[in-house]
Amino acid sequence: MVAHQTRLRVRYAETDQMGVVYYANYLVWMEVARVEYCKSVGFSYQEMERDDGVFLAVTEAHCRYLYPARFDQEVVIHTSLADAHPRMVRFAYEMRHEDRKLATGETKHVFCGRDLKPVRLPVKYRANFGIV
Amino acid sequence: MVAHQTRLRVRYAETDQMGVVYYANYLVWMEVARVEYCKSVGFSYQEMERDDGVFLAVTEAHCRYLYPARFDQEVVIHTSLADAHPRMVRFAYEMRHEDRKLATGETKHVFCGRDLKPVRLPVKYRANFGIV
Amino acid sequence: MVAHQTRLRVRYAETDQMGVVYYANYLVWMEVARVEYCKSVGFSYQEMERDDGVFLAVTEAHCRYLYPARFDQEVVIHTSLADAHPRMVRFAYEMRHEDRKLATGETKHVFCGRDLKPVRLPVKYRANFGIV
Amino acid sequence: MVAHQTRLRVRYAETDQMGVVYYANYLVWMEVARVEYCKSVGFSYQEMERDDGVFLAVTEAHCRYLYPARFDQEVVIHTSLADAHPRMVRFAYEMRHEDRKLATGETKHVFCGRDLKPVRLPVKYRANFGIV
Repeated sequence: MVAHQTRLRVRYAETDQMGVVYYANYLVWMEVARVEYCKSVGFSYQEMERDDGVFLAVTEAHCRYLYPARFDQEVVIHTSLADAHPRMVRFAYEMRHEDRKLATGETKHVFCGRDLKPVRLPVKYRANFGIV
Repeated sequence: MVAHQTRLRVRYAETDQMGVVYYANYLVWMEVARVEYCKSVGFSYQEMERDDGVFLAVTEAHCRYLYPARFDQEVVIHTSLADAHPRMVRFAYEMRHEDRKLATGETKHVFCGRDLKPVRLPVKYRANFGIV
Repeated sequence: MVAHQTRLRVRYAETDQMGVVYYANYLVWMEVARVEYCKSVGFSYQEMERDDGVFLAVTEAHCRYLYPARFDQEVVIHTSLADAHPRMVRFAYEMRHEDRKLATGETKHVFCGRDLKPVRLPVKYRANFGIV
Repeated sequence: MVAHQTRLRVRYAETDQMGVVYYANYLVWMEVARVEYCKSVGFSYQEMERDDGVFLAVTEAHCRYLYPARFDQEVVIHTSLADAHPRMVRFAYEMRHEDRKLATGETKHVFCGRDLKPVRLPVKYRANFGIV
């Protein structure tokens, strides 16, 4: 199973008055990691959208917050494919700062056309998602 | 069971290039609804933080996306208390535009002090959460 | 000169670890106020984009921060048209909490088509912007 | 004059339904660039806040938008110190994608204590800002 590793640094904008990262921003990080995952397995999400009109619409997102992330920390996100079919895909994420696990997450997506109606993933992208 | 209703209008900033609301923003809306829920049952989240140093740290968030929300739509969020103990609380959310269900969500929180260490909810707030 | 008044409540998501509203969010508020301004003078920005393919692309934004806004405060934004021609429009904003001025801002926009190339504002919208 | 160069990649979250980056996000990028600028001249903004209680409160922000940034593009931000005194500092920014200038910006800040009241920059940080 391919696992991709993304690094990012916590932005001031991402903190809130509790002094830690606001909880919705972990979903933004999952998206950043997902886009990099796609590149790591050989295609560009941007081009899939623009050239083939295939979108990954989120149908479910889940995050467990274990330890708060703070401004200027480096966060490492491990992304893996949890499941994939021609109609949907699930990603799993683990976010860490140094040796501390910050959060785990999961997102589920359906493939859509420009009209946001479900489609089957074009054959040329299936190998990228490990769909045989 | 008390259920509170919050209304908000989708901001341009909340959309993405798919032409619909970006998925992380539903968690922001849940927070807006949660703060209003607290007011509706008789206390101010802002004052609980500032005056008593009690924070609601999110430990888990979940969202199911059923139908995309779009710019300038009015979204109605029904918020209810799913569970509450002196150490934690769970909220459930249902988001609608007119008669269409857009999303459902759930958040789980622990009560914390200023140092983000878990605490028991001060007695004076327990009735607000239906804790006897 | 028409001036429109928009009210919003500061979201937790909008604060940062300084304990006040993060500076970029004032630009989001200006957008919320701008959209309401358009409604107040008789048209829907959403419909102008969708039905006529006319977009207000920002070419300049400016904000002076006078006093920090805080979580859960009600902010009142006074929006007025500072200038308008068939190719551009400027808005001016004043943001207050109670009798305290929080910030003033200005945005400059050009009218664009779907390709983001400049266009002249369709005649039917000119009266809304006070263009004769 | 020291100029620092920051690189970032446009996030999906940063786009809006116009298909380009939402205008307030350029201010977030300026903040990311500012934090890296501080590191490049020898100190950590995070430590200055945490250890010395010195904050850089924004008093003014300005952005000129020349060409829209798009999802997944690499943006390079050149940051320089435009002015600095013991009570305030001004930064100038130029944002590019490849050889295209996307935007220019400027932010003005006063040094503050934890109570957000203005202070004079502690002597130990002055050389970092080129203040003699």
